[in-house]
Amino acid sequence: MILVNGAAADTVAANDRGLAYGDGVFRTLTVRGARLRCWGRHYRKLERDCAALAIPCPSEQLLRREVEAAAQGQPECVAKIIVTRGIGARGYATPRPALPTRIVMTSAMPVHPPEFATTGVCVHLCATRLAVQPRLAGIKHLNRLENVLARAEWQDAGTAEGLMLDPENNVIGGTMSNLFIVEAGALVTPELSRCGVAGVTRERVLEAAPVHGISCRVETVSLERALQAEEILFVNSVIGVWPVRKLARREWTRMPHAAHVRQWLEHEAN
Amino acid sequence: MILVNGAAADTVAANDRGLAYGDGVFRTLTVRGARLRCWGRHYRKLERDCAALAIPCPSEQLLRREVEAAAQGQPECVAKIIVTRGIGARGYATPRPALPTRIVMTSAMPVHPPEFATTGVCVHLCATRLAVQPRLAGIKHLNRLENVLARAEWQDAGTAEGLMLDPENNVIGGTMSNLFIVEAGALVTPELSRCGVAGVTRERVLEAAPVHGISCRVETVSLERALQAEEILFVNSVIGVWPVRKLARREWTRMPHAAHVRQWLEHEAN
Repeated sequence: MILVNGAAADTVAANDRGLAYGDGVFRTLTVRGARLRCWGRHYRKLERDCAALAIPCPSEQLLRREVEAAAQGQPECVAKIIVTRGIGARGYATPRPALPTRIVMTSAMPVHPPEFATTGVCVHLCATRLAVQPRLAGIKHLNRLENVLARAEWQDAGTAEGLMLDPENNVIGGTMSNLFIVEAGALVTPELSRCGVAGVTRERVLEAAPVHGISCRVETVSLERALQAEEILFVNSVIGVWPVRKLARREWTRMPHAAHVRQWLEHEAN
Repeated sequence: MILVNGAAADTVAANDRGLAYGDGVFRTLTVRGARLRCWGRHYRKLERDCAALAIPCPSEQLLRREVEAAAQGQPECVAKIIVTRGIGARGYATPRPALPTRIVMTSAMPVHPPEFATTGVCVHLCATRLAVQPRLAGIKHLNRLENVLARAEWQDAGTAEGLMLDPENNVIGGTMSNLFIVEAGALVTPELSRCGVAGVTRERVLEAAPVHGISCRVETVSLERALQAEEILFVNSVIGVWPVRKLARREWTRMPHAAHVRQWLEHEAN
């Protein structure tokens, strides 16, 4: 089901700036047992991302109601929220005031082989790099051609995710996920001030780790360093945690931290 | 008027990848005296840009007919063509085969003060930089948040364009235009293999200059070098040529090459 500005619809205005320029932001979250998972975190992230682009963010109550309405009758589904700067005349100048467009759509929960979460996934090392753009780094905005090009690099169903690097051979994340490496029993996640998307699940792991007695740091992580890690974990709101089984020349068979992180995320109340 | 896939419409599918990811390309051209200007060049550029993103490009005949239909009754207008990868399920993986979406829309020819073309324009030096992304450089794709952010840096109507730099302080172009500098009577335009959009008017000037006995080169151009140029010219299909009157600490009063380039573009047949 799709709601556009609160009304059931399957189209948006052809002159919406989300289409013209990718001038907007989005979120993907899950509905489980008819409950929105981590709603507060998702809304706060949406609010921060809108603020970074000077897009007025719709109210939490309004969006929550719309997500719940769109998910009606689908107790287990994925909800996607897009907020754009709204319609605008031709040209880059932003309409003042901007009247943002809200698009809320639900889709079936994807079914992945259960072993992705337990014995891990094969990962493609993407040739497409993430450009360095501090002004947009961290934001989940609608300019996602780099992710599209990276995802188009492999077709085989046996490869579950692609690893993306910055131009200096630092690992940044998956095409659709954030990542953590494990070193000496501690978690390390790439610094995202120059490129990448800082997702809600990454934030949850960063907060949960110290509570469970595991050190967790944000650092620049080179590809070479990642390939020497004890484990690599991809995380996002839909997949949860996928440990890496195979990446480039390296294979992993033990992944105890993946199980811990999955437990933290599943047991966390909100 | 707006045509979506050939039919009069003012909306597009809410799950179009153009909206979800900026997964598409576009062109802006003028209609003058009920004739499409430089159609062949615009179509060939659209075709190259589609190919660069592996989007099947609609046929020249089909698109030309749709632009002409959209411009019916508006002998002087601006036509915009958007081609996206079409609708798709959630996720970055590209639909195979992709059924591209065609959006053709017309708008009134903008009215700019005539002195913009003769005595020149004031230009804002943008703080927003263009990220280095060789994989997307040159393509007029729908990921244009950098241009949106750069254009939002000024509001005064007296400033007509913004100059954008790459991270190494090289000039790349205007927020909506390409640029040429004049040095020792020769034209130089920035190299666009790392960022920027390689527009049709830039291509026309590159071809016309030698025919008119003016040397024209593509080079890396630093901001310092541009500020020492004899002239700076912004060009695109809608504005034609705007010489720069004021940029940062520099002012220009003589701009003879701007007049020449304007003549070449106006007199060129197609």
